[in-house]
Amino acid sequence: MRITIGEFLLDRLKTVGITEIIGVPGDFNLSLLEQVDETDGIRFIGTCNELNAAYAADGYARSRGISALLTTYGVGELSALNGIAGAAAEHVPVVSIAGAPPLYATEDRYALHHTMADGNFSNMLESIGHFTDVAVRLTPMNAVEEIDRALHTCLREKRPVHIQLPSDISHLTVEVPDVPFDATLPTSDPERLESAAERILELFSRAERPVILADLDADRHGFVPALQAIAEKTHTPYAHLTSGRGVLDEQHPLYLGTYNGAGSAPAVREAVENSDFLITTTPRFIEVNSGSFTHELPEEDILDFGDQHVSIEGEHYVGITGLELLDILLDRMPVASARDLPPTPQQPEWTVEVDAPLTQARMWPRLSRFLRSDDVVIADAGTSNIGLSAQTFPTDSKYINSSIWGSIGYTLPALLGSQLASPERRHILFIGDGSFQMTAQELSTILREDLAPIIVLVNNRGYTIERFILGMNSGYNDVANWSYGKLPKVFHPSTTMVSYSASTEQELEEALASIDASGAGAFLEVHLDPEDAPDGLKAFGPMTADFDYGPRGPRNP
Amino acid sequence: MRITIGEFLLDRLKTVGITEIIGVPGDFNLSLLEQVDETDGIRFIGTCNELNAAYAADGYARSRGISALLTTYGVGELSALNGIAGAAAEHVPVVSIAGAPPLYATEDRYALHHTMADGNFSNMLESIGHFTDVAVRLTPMNAVEEIDRALHTCLREKRPVHIQLPSDISHLTVEVPDVPFDATLPTSDPERLESAAERILELFSRAERPVILADLDADRHGFVPALQAIAEKTHTPYAHLTSGRGVLDEQHPLYLGTYNGAGSAPAVREAVENSDFLITTTPRFIEVNSGSFTHELPEEDILDFGDQHVSIEGEHYVGITGLELLDILLDRMPVASARDLPPTPQQPEWTVEVDAPLTQARMWPRLSRFLRSDDVVIADAGTSNIGLSAQTFPTDSKYINSSIWGSIGYTLPALLGSQLASPERRHILFIGDGSFQMTAQELSTILREDLAPIIVLVNNRGYTIERFILGMNSGYNDVANWSYGKLPKVFHPSTTMVSYSASTEQELEEALASIDASGAGAFLEVHLDPEDAPDGLKAFGPMTADFDYGPRGPRNP
Repeated sequence: MRITIGEFLLDRLKTVGITEIIGVPGDFNLSLLEQVDETDGIRFIGTCNELNAAYAADGYARSRGISALLTTYGVGELSALNGIAGAAAEHVPVVSIAGAPPLYATEDRYALHHTMADGNFSNMLESIGHFTDVAVRLTPMNAVEEIDRALHTCLREKRPVHIQLPSDISHLTVEVPDVPFDATLPTSDPERLESAAERILELFSRAERPVILADLDADRHGFVPALQAIAEKTHTPYAHLTSGRGVLDEQHPLYLGTYNGAGSAPAVREAVENSDFLITTTPRFIEVNSGSFTHELPEEDILDFGDQHVSIEGEHYVGITGLELLDILLDRMPVASARDLPPTPQQPEWTVEVDAPLTQARMWPRLSRFLRSDDVVIADAGTSNIGLSAQTFPTDSKYINSSIWGSIGYTLPALLGSQLASPERRHILFIGDGSFQMTAQELSTILREDLAPIIVLVNNRGYTIERFILGMNSGYNDVANWSYGKLPKVFHPSTTMVSYSASTEQELEEALASIDASGAGAFLEVHLDPEDAPDGLKAFGPMTADFDYGPRGPRNP
Repeated sequence: MRITIGEFLLDRLKTVGITEIIGVPGDFNLSLLEQVDETDGIRFIGTCNELNAAYAADGYARSRGISALLTTYGVGELSALNGIAGAAAEHVPVVSIAGAPPLYATEDRYALHHTMADGNFSNMLESIGHFTDVAVRLTPMNAVEEIDRALHTCLREKRPVHIQLPSDISHLTVEVPDVPFDATLPTSDPERLESAAERILELFSRAERPVILADLDADRHGFVPALQAIAEKTHTPYAHLTSGRGVLDEQHPLYLGTYNGAGSAPAVREAVENSDFLITTTPRFIEVNSGSFTHELPEEDILDFGDQHVSIEGEHYVGITGLELLDILLDRMPVASARDLPPTPQQPEWTVEVDAPLTQARMWPRLSRFLRSDDVVIADAGTSNIGLSAQTFPTDSKYINSSIWGSIGYTLPALLGSQLASPERRHILFIGDGSFQMTAQELSTILREDLAPIIVLVNNRGYTIERFILGMNSGYNDVANWSYGKLPKVFHPSTTMVSYSASTEQELEEALASIDASGAGAFLEVHLDPEDAPDGLKAFGPMTADFDYGPRGPRNP
């Protein structure tokens, strides 16, 4: 069968579950956009700029499993690069597509706009390719193979891939295979799989203090249902890295809390570090989730599940998939008897201090009570993420943040993307003023798409996370104080989103009650002192300063 | 003398004329920011995000000669990359500085936030280095040499350079040279210079139809005063490439107009293509300034001035600087007598059609009459730049646009940067709604810095330049219709900027009269039909579609 390259690409994107392509039009991608318009079941969502589009695509992929980003050559794809690199760091499968100059001009090295005007057409791919698992320019001769390779790689490795589509070839036809695209991953070698399972079951049967320590890869590789079920079947307690927050059920009595090296609660640290069989999911310890590298996992008694390997007490099994192995273990592991469940933790009653100004210490516990099952909770790096770190998430909620890459401003566009991908779920975003200003215009697209999220803007007049690292009162940590609450109507005059403002606990109560009673979107600005911070941040700041600036830094000149 | 690395860097930046560093704080650059705060004569300007900072630095460098951009590692420097690449394409000297992780962590390959968490610390430099003439990480041992090399390269090549400064070394001291930094460029080989001058004078004396054709490098390399003086002394007529608009005096009787291949006015095309001695300044013909490569310069009779070479009828002289050569030529060239000056062109009287809706055909001639000598005029890619292409600029005005890189959204932050660099000049920006939305938040910083530009927002509800290429009525070319005029007060509640709106010629007259009478900043929204376009765009659109999509594109499926 012969169809056009554009049709083939769009058909493949639909097959893997993509119904929205997020991006910005530019002359080199308009030909593909015309084909999107002609294709049922997939539509284009235009954002205000390309970095925002990349962030939105990242959010979409976290909720849908994969996403598509569309930019134009040079100016567009480079603008998106920080978002693409973030997807690489956070293990998020994004198919990044850039409309490129026509192939004849590329091959003949024309000097063109959106280039260095020097005939070099490899620099963009090379620059971007540092952060993608595939970086390729399509031609009529390679398109079928490279599109399928890119999609398989993206799905398998959970990493972004980058495809340049020259503007003059998307309407050319190519012979495409008659068999449908196979999105399933390769399966395990049966002998290796069985060997690994037997070995694990034997070790597990002897373990007296097994613990699961989950990081974000558990989510990316689809381990969560089996891992949660194994924990519950065997009564194995579990913890999260801070970068793995929300992966397993945080309301369950088996949940220990977050493990963060010396920054952990003593009981969590004790349980994890003294486990005699620690089950991990390719944890990535960086300075900010390890208490500045004070983590001490057991040296030998570790079972680590990767997506394409398992490591059992240092012995590395390849040729198996973590997912298949988990399913076998869930089936064969014995139902717990010996280990009793602790009682389910109950949240204490909440008492409002009516006239009290809002504080970080009291606000986050109150806001966490507002969350409910099935919510998608998104928090920007900094105060919001750290503020929520001492709270637990509801069962079956989903948590989205930028825990490794730490790119501020990521979450507002990510909210757009996630809500496009999961419009049936309630979405709640917590974001600071400095972060919000980075990507503020994307509120426009959220409203234009008639989405109704709850946005909590933490206005503390600057980069408070940085104040606690360096420059508590330095002007460079201040940001302008906008009239934030007016923005929904400025960006979308007919919006039904309601703006709220709270400076006291009572005002917060009233706003939350009103939001809860309403189905409309909400923009809730909460006012906090610039020098107030969650306890976690008060500890994090000086530790980060020591790490960053060393013995002769600005604190010890 | 021993001073800290941070002090040395800041001292060098001040020496080359930089008084503002533009960027976004992040934990890896806070140590340098503390040093900025402690240094007289240089200050930090925080923008809302890093791409905007890069655009602002580009604008600053165009007005000041060089600029400094400050970001943080990974998330910051990659967000800025499109702006850095734009400076490379447009030949703008920007010193890009990124705070980097501490050197010990880099050398020991720590897994860190703002990285891929894999110990790779070369990927950022390699990715960014495709677009900068220097890409280097400082160490205490290389800092003095590399900082000076980066600054010399930036000044000499008029290209961005990128320096990573590890967060733990900016307070370490290094031995620095006692001699001051020498910002002057190497000088010419005297024999080559004299040979070139003699050859040029001989050829020029025989030329009957000499013409100067200036491109943007004439501005970047400081050729303009000598080139203008040569033209006037010898009565040599001159033209601009569209990418060189505003370089030479467009009100002078010697000004022919813009040369754009088959897209030129017939008299300009005739003069340039039939010149028997065409003087160029390293012109870069791309599809959008050459009438889709229909330019036909004389084959042999060309004198091309580069910054570090001159090419005389195909013979390439190296070891000379264009600037020195121009000064010699200006001195020795004979005063014109044979060639009479045409009369100075006079603008016809302007008659307002009071109730007429604004049109592109009438608006740009009217707006161009509003411009005056010494103005800095900035126009975004698309309708604004093309609308002004049929107008001439006042004597001694400066024109800033993104003519090669063509990155929409560039100009609002570039306005911020240029006005910081030249606060004494009136600044006027023309920008479309689609472009404005890309970087809109930087209006906040413009107002926060108490700058008072005149911003003309062309609201035609979408990407009109793209409508004329493809998708005249396609939804992907629409953008949200914001209440733009409310933004100044939202971003800066105490602003003195006044918002205006005009849909008719009379409303435009009244707004311009009021703006002219006031010293305050102005935000003038003009409303135009989405399908209206300047004549230049009506011709450009189909030509671009043919170039981009070829014989089997969406227009000829």
